[in-house]
Amino acid sequence: MRQTLRIGLAQINTTVGDFQGNLYKMIESWQQAREQGVELLVFPELAICGYPPEDLLHKPHFLQANRTALQALASACPDIVLVVGFADGQEHKAYNAAAILREGEIDQIYRKGRLPNFSVFDESRYFVTGLEPVVIEVGSIRVVPTICYDLWNVSWLEKWLERVGSFDLLLNISASPFDMGKIRKREAVIRRYGEEFATPLAYCNLVGGQDELVFDGRSMLADASGRVVLRAAPFEEDLLIADIVVPAKGPASLTPISHPAKRCEDQLDEVYSALLLGTRDYVRKNGFSNILVGLSGGIDSALTAAIAVAALGPDQVVGITMPSKFNSSETLADASLLAENLGITLQTLPIGAVLDHFNETLARVPGWDAGGIAYENLQARIRGTLLMSLSNQLGAMVLTTGNKSETSVGYSTLYGDSAGGFAVIKDVPKTLVYRLARYVNERAGKAVIPETTITRAPSAELRPDQKDSDSLPDYEVLDEIIRGYVERDESAAQLVESGLPEEEVNRVIRLIDRNEYKRRQSPPGVRITNKAFGKDRRLPITNRYDATYTKSS
Amino acid sequence: MRQTLRIGLAQINTTVGDFQGNLYKMIESWQQAREQGVELLVFPELAICGYPPEDLLHKPHFLQANRTALQALASACPDIVLVVGFADGQEHKAYNAAAILREGEIDQIYRKGRLPNFSVFDESRYFVTGLEPVVIEVGSIRVVPTICYDLWNVSWLEKWLERVGSFDLLLNISASPFDMGKIRKREAVIRRYGEEFATPLAYCNLVGGQDELVFDGRSMLADASGRVVLRAAPFEEDLLIADIVVPAKGPASLTPISHPAKRCEDQLDEVYSALLLGTRDYVRKNGFSNILVGLSGGIDSALTAAIAVAALGPDQVVGITMPSKFNSSETLADASLLAENLGITLQTLPIGAVLDHFNETLARVPGWDAGGIAYENLQARIRGTLLMSLSNQLGAMVLTTGNKSETSVGYSTLYGDSAGGFAVIKDVPKTLVYRLARYVNERAGKAVIPETTITRAPSAELRPDQKDSDSLPDYEVLDEIIRGYVERDESAAQLVESGLPEEEVNRVIRLIDRNEYKRRQSPPGVRITNKAFGKDRRLPITNRYDATYTKSS
Repeated sequence: MRQTLRIGLAQINTTVGDFQGNLYKMIESWQQAREQGVELLVFPELAICGYPPEDLLHKPHFLQANRTALQALASACPDIVLVVGFADGQEHKAYNAAAILREGEIDQIYRKGRLPNFSVFDESRYFVTGLEPVVIEVGSIRVVPTICYDLWNVSWLEKWLERVGSFDLLLNISASPFDMGKIRKREAVIRRYGEEFATPLAYCNLVGGQDELVFDGRSMLADASGRVVLRAAPFEEDLLIADIVVPAKGPASLTPISHPAKRCEDQLDEVYSALLLGTRDYVRKNGFSNILVGLSGGIDSALTAAIAVAALGPDQVVGITMPSKFNSSETLADASLLAENLGITLQTLPIGAVLDHFNETLARVPGWDAGGIAYENLQARIRGTLLMSLSNQLGAMVLTTGNKSETSVGYSTLYGDSAGGFAVIKDVPKTLVYRLARYVNERAGKAVIPETTITRAPSAELRPDQKDSDSLPDYEVLDEIIRGYVERDESAAQLVESGLPEEEVNRVIRLIDRNEYKRRQSPPGVRITNKAFGKDRRLPITNRYDATYTKSS
Repeated sequence: MRQTLRIGLAQINTTVGDFQGNLYKMIESWQQAREQGVELLVFPELAICGYPPEDLLHKPHFLQANRTALQALASACPDIVLVVGFADGQEHKAYNAAAILREGEIDQIYRKGRLPNFSVFDESRYFVTGLEPVVIEVGSIRVVPTICYDLWNVSWLEKWLERVGSFDLLLNISASPFDMGKIRKREAVIRRYGEEFATPLAYCNLVGGQDELVFDGRSMLADASGRVVLRAAPFEEDLLIADIVVPAKGPASLTPISHPAKRCEDQLDEVYSALLLGTRDYVRKNGFSNILVGLSGGIDSALTAAIAVAALGPDQVVGITMPSKFNSSETLADASLLAENLGITLQTLPIGAVLDHFNETLARVPGWDAGGIAYENLQARIRGTLLMSLSNQLGAMVLTTGNKSETSVGYSTLYGDSAGGFAVIKDVPKTLVYRLARYVNERAGKAVIPETTITRAPSAELRPDQKDSDSLPDYEVLDEIIRGYVERDESAAQLVESGLPEEEVNRVIRLIDRNEYKRRQSPPGVRITNKAFGKDRRLPITNRYDATYTKSS
């Protein structure tokens, strides 16, 4: 006898700690799902409390509130079976769990069997591992729930599932953060699963920004061969619906009910979407609606402003240009043209008078030099102070504009250009900043970011005729060194052997190691690589390790 | 037949990543130890690479350098048996290990069996657990090495040691960070060990500051009953020497050879010593010798300056006072008197002219209010910018002066008074700041910190007649709420039930939760409680959890 089960994957954008808001979203999904005849509705990992709640999980009152919200969800949606992630707090320990809600009750609980404790994940800090799988029976269809990392080791999963006997569908509820290339890894995992188990898979991922992480959604349904047959939207909420058809004999098949979503065109589109969503969610979930960006006429601030406008709308964004005598008329014109193209207000606040008075004041101290690096930093700090003053006065968040290349080598002024609430492109290497700027213009079909902003040699404009290339290697070389040393943990020797110039390798490594203190005091920003500065790279500030290359080493 | 073994515990101050420096220190200890006839010399946990190396452990080249340094130590000190902590990197995994070095070779390796992954510890991120104990035989004396957390669960240890048969001495090499009350916990663990095993214990702890952590040393030797019979110095390097005497029958006994060290007098002495060592090591290990402190005439900056002078000497410290029209002549006089008492240079940089020009510049933007909170923050940011300009010019590190009470509720200006390299008293609640100020004066036998600084009602002096008590509860109440909500993870309901005023509890909880973003961009500082803001309290910035108390909850 053939059996059919209509399943819905609710890819929702939760907020950490927002029990009421998250519950409301789930009830909305449930209403939508039941209108379409869904019998089993699935929500992402820890959807009740948001992911990752970090040390909120150490508060017994938080775990209690999370349990209360789960009960409320069960009561509110009694008529279909729900699978939802929550933190299952027991005395002195908690599980990363999935509740199976049925007829207004918590019917079953599945507890995650594999806890990731690497990269941005600290699950061993919070959770103990579950001890056994469970089977959800809907009619005579047998569904096995798993949680995120459970799926990532198929040989582990085989052993784990030995106890459940045969089943018709594997569920995986995830909070899997985006990085470039992550989608390929997920699809490879799903293929391996299909090869091993020959059973369909329903993968429900979180969507939305949470501090540095962006969850990209892209929930998937795969058939018994591991082929993805239906995909949810990237970087936005979606409800994926399909029928699981279980024949009298042989593996179940999948019939898509919802329409396939538009996919990301390429990696630039992916990264752009991640930056947009990460920025929008950080700003809004932290209670802001308006933002300020300092516009220098350079490419970093131009890209940041373009993303801000795309994320929040032109009326929510104000550009501030803060010229000194070192700024060229060309960059000022570019800042102004950019603001016009983006349709945002531009305020001009010259810094000359303040700079002169700072200079006079500081001249009281023996040794003050109105022309050195301290003087350059001072200009950046005056700008940071102006932006923060307006931020405080107007209740608008300042976005900073530093990219990953600068952040790596400390080519920025602490409390100056690094001052602000969110660092949109902090994980974007400069070479990718250029590609994204061109992408923004292609998307718009016109030069939103002025062509001269893209082609002019980059400069901090803090002294006459300054160019980035005076202090740094070419960005192509710099980014290559950063990828090797920071993202892949390669040694100086490996980098030199790969053909990179020894002197530059050593200089950049020294700068990277020496500037940990600056990064530690910088605002969070969107993570787009598999190793951003942040939770996935925890280096001591006090660190005398000399990683440079010498012939003898 | 009676056997005797002379053991030395080398409580050294290592630096993370400083293989050469750490090796040099160990060779020095070895020279000192052999002169005194030591046969078994013990160094702390991960002494080769420093503790905690954090994500340096993810770099294969770092693990390799660590192995090279270990080999060098073995070669350099061939004539006595050494036990030393190192990171035992194997392919794709590493162990937190102790090497037993003998006759120039790595003779045995013990791998830590219990990995702490809570509070400030992330050992599951880096290490896999060892699988078996080892026995070191020196002559016919049997010594069992353990590493730090191995000791903290005596029933686990009993099972673990079932495999080794009888032994004469347990070693424990540790990197156990200080907090108030930690020494009592350690002694309790040692007592429990003695009760269970009736065998002497040699406990060798690290000393020194590493970013936020201070390791307090205080290595110990306990007899077979768990009674501590010899203690090493608190907060400084030391070499503890004793003879282990193993009779033909019955448990071994201990004969102290080195002299007992001076102990901390009380908890104030302990905290003061931790602040001193933490500050000195952060400044020096990061390559600085001179520091700057902004002196307001208030108690926080006075205590910070006093600690800085005690840590580094008066010639290394410059005080900067930056008066505005809101500063009273009394506080200015106190700043000046303090500088005189401490014997440090004081520079005066009035901020009025710069403030006026900022104000004029900002007045170009509609909505700017020269009298609101933004204007108060502006004053703090001008001061931060002046200090940082001098820091950049003079190569001196700025110490910030915020205490834990202010840090909790965000009573500070980001990039203003929070701007600097190290936040000496960031984990010291205001009520303890007062006690420490009095302690500093008692210690000196005179009012180094002016009495009026201690008795005057605290004020930020950013507007006329401002008092902290206008915006905050009494510090006694505030600190009580912080201890409960932050350090013990208690709920608002628990705090209200304990007798704290509901309105204040809710106000403070809201402020604590809302100011995570400020703390995230603040400099590191010395951890003195068992939960500081930092690695031991990892809360999301984006967090809508409402933990306040309502009657209905």
